[in-house]
Amino acid sequence: MPNRTDLLAANARYAATFTYGDLLAPPARHLAILTCMDARLDPAKFLGLREGEAHVIRNAGGRANPDALDALVISQQLLGTNEVFVIHHTHCGMLGLRDEVVQEVLTERFQRPIEPRQYGGFENLAQSVRDDVATIRADARFPEDLPISGFIYDVETGVLTDVN
Amino acid sequence: MPNRTDLLAANARYAATFTYGDLLAPPARHLAILTCMDARLDPAKFLGLREGEAHVIRNAGGRANPDALDALVISQQLLGTNEVFVIHHTHCGMLGLRDEVVQEVLTERFQRPIEPRQYGGFENLAQSVRDDVATIRADARFPEDLPISGFIYDVETGVLTDVN
Repeated sequence: MPNRTDLLAANARYAATFTYGDLLAPPARHLAILTCMDARLDPAKFLGLREGEAHVIRNAGGRANPDALDALVISQQLLGTNEVFVIHHTHCGMLGLRDEVVQEVLTERFQRPIEPRQYGGFENLAQSVRDDVATIRADARFPEDLPISGFIYDVETGVLTDVN
Repeated sequence: MPNRTDLLAANARYAATFTYGDLLAPPARHLAILTCMDARLDPAKFLGLREGEAHVIRNAGGRANPDALDALVISQQLLGTNEVFVIHHTHCGMLGLRDEVVQEVLTERFQRPIEPRQYGGFENLAQSVRDDVATIRADARFPEDLPISGFIYDVETGVLTDVN
């Protein structure tokens, strides 16, 4: 298991110079970021965030799905964040993804009953950001005046661009 | 909006030296990490991961909730990962969290009907890791022999420890 060996060695190096300092559970920037799990994205690096500054919620696509909304509620009500960045990205695997394709792949591979699910694929990148901002806005568990910024991250240039 | 100003400036610095190189959507380490949104955790840093190496799924607690499981399915079936790290951490806000408390806080703050939800709080940290590993194992959309490692990250020392 090369990942275990390599990454636990890397963790030992990190821990050797780690100092807890004044890190607290409530994020110092009072910010929660919702973005995609994509391996090419390192949100802490591309936003210059240090440990302790922001919550980072990630899933397939950076979608405002039910569990992400629950995480945002915990972030705001228990840990004091009051601003949200929604960040999707170019060349996302969820762009054009149809649930039926996932279902076919799973059924073919495992040859057993698989319950269909909605995986959160989308047809238009900028619209998917607007949709997720709107989903957060429509949830009764957030204040009407919550600042939410929508962005697209370009995986080829590293540049973040506003979605209006 | 200080976060927008600061973090977009940080992004411009990141992008100025960014080179796409040979980054691909399928993670180079074929690894998916499920961990908590906690601001004190920078999984790329504490595991020594570079851009392009692993999917990172994050929510409140690092729980294997339905949307996280869907993300893991996308990660494996569409993007070729074949190993999972589940990483919870010490001093997690979800430790001891009861759904009724969240419900009370929300109702008190917003004075409007709020649909109750299960937020994923837990009573025992090591057991919560075991539970989430078991939840992934029990899902028909993953292979029986999927390597899943469970860890606890100590936010005070930066050290990752196996959960058996």
